[in-house]
Amino acid sequence: MSQYTGVAVSPGRVVGTVRTMAPPVAEPPVGEKIPEDADPQAEAARIAEAAASVQKALTHRAEHAPGDGKAVLEATAQMAADPSLTQTAQGFVLAGGASAARAVWEAGDQVASMLEGLGGYMAERAADVKDVRGRIVAELRGEQAPGIPDVEEPFVLTATDLAPADTATLDPALVMALVTSDGGPQSHTAILARQLGLPAIVAAKGVLDIADGTEVFVDAGFGTITDDVTDEHRRFAEAWTELQKNPLTYEGGGIELTDGTRMQLLANIGGAKDAKAAAAAHADGVGLFRTEFLFLDREDEPTVEEQTTAYLEAFASFPGKKVVVRTIDAGADKPLPFLTDTDEPNPALGVRAYRTSWEKRSVLTNQLDAISAAAKQSDATVWVMAPMISTTEDTEDFVGLCRERDLAPAGIMVETPSAAVTADRQLAACDFASIGTNDLTQYTMAADRMLGTLAHLNNPWQPAVLTLVKATCDGARAAGGDPEAFGESAAKPVGVCGEAAGDPGLAVVLVGLGVNSLSMTPRSLPAVAKVLSTVSLEQAQQLAAAAVAARTADDARDAVRAGLPILGELGL
Amino acid sequence: MSQYTGVAVSPGRVVGTVRTMAPPVAEPPVGEKIPEDADPQAEAARIAEAAASVQKALTHRAEHAPGDGKAVLEATAQMAADPSLTQTAQGFVLAGGASAARAVWEAGDQVASMLEGLGGYMAERAADVKDVRGRIVAELRGEQAPGIPDVEEPFVLTATDLAPADTATLDPALVMALVTSDGGPQSHTAILARQLGLPAIVAAKGVLDIADGTEVFVDAGFGTITDDVTDEHRRFAEAWTELQKNPLTYEGGGIELTDGTRMQLLANIGGAKDAKAAAAAHADGVGLFRTEFLFLDREDEPTVEEQTTAYLEAFASFPGKKVVVRTIDAGADKPLPFLTDTDEPNPALGVRAYRTSWEKRSVLTNQLDAISAAAKQSDATVWVMAPMISTTEDTEDFVGLCRERDLAPAGIMVETPSAAVTADRQLAACDFASIGTNDLTQYTMAADRMLGTLAHLNNPWQPAVLTLVKATCDGARAAGGDPEAFGESAAKPVGVCGEAAGDPGLAVVLVGLGVNSLSMTPRSLPAVAKVLSTVSLEQAQQLAAAAVAARTADDARDAVRAGLPILGELGL
Repeated sequence: MSQYTGVAVSPGRVVGTVRTMAPPVAEPPVGEKIPEDADPQAEAARIAEAAASVQKALTHRAEHAPGDGKAVLEATAQMAADPSLTQTAQGFVLAGGASAARAVWEAGDQVASMLEGLGGYMAERAADVKDVRGRIVAELRGEQAPGIPDVEEPFVLTATDLAPADTATLDPALVMALVTSDGGPQSHTAILARQLGLPAIVAAKGVLDIADGTEVFVDAGFGTITDDVTDEHRRFAEAWTELQKNPLTYEGGGIELTDGTRMQLLANIGGAKDAKAAAAAHADGVGLFRTEFLFLDREDEPTVEEQTTAYLEAFASFPGKKVVVRTIDAGADKPLPFLTDTDEPNPALGVRAYRTSWEKRSVLTNQLDAISAAAKQSDATVWVMAPMISTTEDTEDFVGLCRERDLAPAGIMVETPSAAVTADRQLAACDFASIGTNDLTQYTMAADRMLGTLAHLNNPWQPAVLTLVKATCDGARAAGGDPEAFGESAAKPVGVCGEAAGDPGLAVVLVGLGVNSLSMTPRSLPAVAKVLSTVSLEQAQQLAAAAVAARTADDARDAVRAGLPILGELGL
Repeated sequence: MSQYTGVAVSPGRVVGTVRTMAPPVAEPPVGEKIPEDADPQAEAARIAEAAASVQKALTHRAEHAPGDGKAVLEATAQMAADPSLTQTAQGFVLAGGASAARAVWEAGDQVASMLEGLGGYMAERAADVKDVRGRIVAELRGEQAPGIPDVEEPFVLTATDLAPADTATLDPALVMALVTSDGGPQSHTAILARQLGLPAIVAAKGVLDIADGTEVFVDAGFGTITDDVTDEHRRFAEAWTELQKNPLTYEGGGIELTDGTRMQLLANIGGAKDAKAAAAAHADGVGLFRTEFLFLDREDEPTVEEQTTAYLEAFASFPGKKVVVRTIDAGADKPLPFLTDTDEPNPALGVRAYRTSWEKRSVLTNQLDAISAAAKQSDATVWVMAPMISTTEDTEDFVGLCRERDLAPAGIMVETPSAAVTADRQLAACDFASIGTNDLTQYTMAADRMLGTLAHLNNPWQPAVLTLVKATCDGARAAGGDPEAFGESAAKPVGVCGEAAGDPGLAVVLVGLGVNSLSMTPRSLPAVAKVLSTVSLEQAQQLAAAAVAARTADDARDAVRAGLPILGELGL
């Protein structure tokens, strides 16, 4: 038996047959000829047959493909039926004695160049010609067609990594799970899997060694793939399948632990459209309103009026509820021409997020003016917070700007280890904290979260990360809260808005550490609500203590899962 | 009065007159002509006069310059005397009516191009021609000569930042202190100042506003510059001057706090030459032997034999004493073609240092073979440690490699927040820890230490950084030590080998937090020894507790300095 371990990026457990994504078709050698004793006419005829076969396969697949994929596949099928490619290729065989594969390759180049010369829409079709060319060559050689395998039965897709172009043709009804050898938690594969709700594991080294057709158990809760499928695995997988058929729901209004402790379950949003979807999913408010969407892909700063309107639209979905607005988080992987420096040697450690306001005050103060104006016109309860705070001076500066504009509560994102270990002083200077586990993990482990090779470090189960979450909550208790303003807790409020909040097992740990609101993608609300409602605060505290004290990230996760059998029962 | 604050990078206190480094000479406008009523012959004659004047000034300065600077200045003076530049320029005035300044500028271009065309040694002289050209143009215009001001009296040099080319001509007998508006703790200015032992402050915004000739007090212990010089300031400066005349000494053998607690004072070295100098400075051993020098600037890995010989040479200076060897720390700002990936978006958060051994084992295992071979042949007590450890798995892996080679003690560098907060588990898995405060600060504050704009964050006085030093020491106590192997302490040994260890005030704090050896540049040994010998462990613990609990880095430093009047008495 073989077992492979990677980084779980989207939960679920399945038993299925591995189908490996075919590599790109290799170019036939330059000058490859048909054998001397072969018939050129027959070789030319093979081209037409292969093209017809490719067309048929693509047409068939288009019939079953969802949404955008249908159109993409239909267009590619038409291209396969187009006589210009096959006739040109046949000419190369008959006139020059080229092998069928080489002839198709060169004909593809010629047709693609011609299309590129025409420009505009036609030029964009050149990529389709090259796709079809590869498929015909694979067909001629009897190889598997490139891209997502074309099989009728559901399968577990293994691949090096998925390219954006593979996305449109991936049929979620056929792909049971995604497992890649490369990529990281922020890779295209991971993002796609979370969007589609597909179980997925990335950075699982060696997984391409699993032979096509092997039956495997994929545990995208643990991040493991094994070819030794047991009856217990099948029960886990059945539970997950059952959950997909009868999905959990969240009815809103917060949840109660078994001892009566109440928790808010909030949503992460990026604008008004997301806000509507979050409200439809019964989120109790918004724990992270990312405001970058207004600023990206433009040369200049949006006006205060433009911003006010945009914020009001998002607030409109949550009357009477909390919406935590994060001020602009530019820099690193989100450069802004009018705000950030693109020459930094390590942009993730550079003048990003709140730090851009040190020199260029007006972008932040204009935004606060807009948030303040929107808050006054809205029925939502608007909280505001700054990203990437590292010192108490930063916090005092930001809170000062908020107070001048009657913006309260004003808080900070805890994303640097510094903010976490000085949380008592940070929270003495502001009203609340929200932990961004993605960046906090990156800095605590000193591991770029965009690098697949460091995916095992970029894991919020790392005991060091949990220790800093604990430090933040302990600091919030030391700073003390205002029971009138923030409910029964004696601590100032601490939320979590990183991806960790949407993992039901981690959610229990975070609650046990003292976090009092969790903000996540709305898709995660039902499972988190369900699991939290089965534990008491004391149980959560015990599991949290075990996770913090664990030797490794895997030990932390295993200890918590062992204490939460509901995760296995639900197939999570 | 005006006061400016920057980052203190090399200690000392002086009262002196500000001389500002002149900016580069601006190019005279293209096509600039002599006035219509001017005499071209007289204008041409001005060029020869200006060149002679520049030559005289440079020759005079060369007479008083130390070492390398003398040769640089003499060569530049000869260039000013060379007729090719002046005659070419005079031709442009007489034939084309160019202004003297424009003519010199263009002649400089022409002569420089000619030299560059000759290649080799002559091509390298092109930069000298351009330097001389700038000086002649400044002389013609009556402007201050570019570069280090040419004055006879000692002065405080203010500048944007120093370029490497300014170094050779900086006379430490004339420059009392360096203050720059830009740059950071790793800038050329900072490195130069520490080498020369010159008081220096970098990243002091606004400091160029101080008028040339203003008397100021520079406190490079605190990082402040003020033009309101008081009698107390003069007393501080006198104490510092006195200390330079009668410098402190360190006689070796470790030091004793007033309560009898003993501390090792070790040196940071990069090879055999440094080791000799460290032994001459009575260092009690080596706390950090950087081994990169053997690997940098070459295409291939050095052989095991080559490495063994190099390590033995360094060990030879410390018979019977401890030498802590750090395994290769490549990547980030120290890329190695055969080991590191240069395409990472954030190299400081990438696959660097110990992490390179995950995929390329042999570079590390060959090095450990060489260290093991050298240790067996040497009288030094060899300890070995790995840089950039972030998880317990890393530590276990490294210790396993060491054990296989009979290398003990085997330890880790604590440079990531993760290693600090999980120190109990890290030290259960290894024999000792050494805290690298430079990287630990960078990651804790999430601030690139190469960026001048973030210099205030890259400050080991940040309470968050001190908290993580404390966490490391607490973890070492929890892990327990072996009294037989490591002396009286019940904790496993924790050293500090970052720059913080060489700051006498911080050294007291580190000792108070539980660190039991300090490793520094040998220049810092006497002051650290002197200050430590005036405090008790209990006093150090009280000062450390105050620093950890401080609201800001400035508050932490002020609290400690207030409790250590000896610093002021010594002018530190």
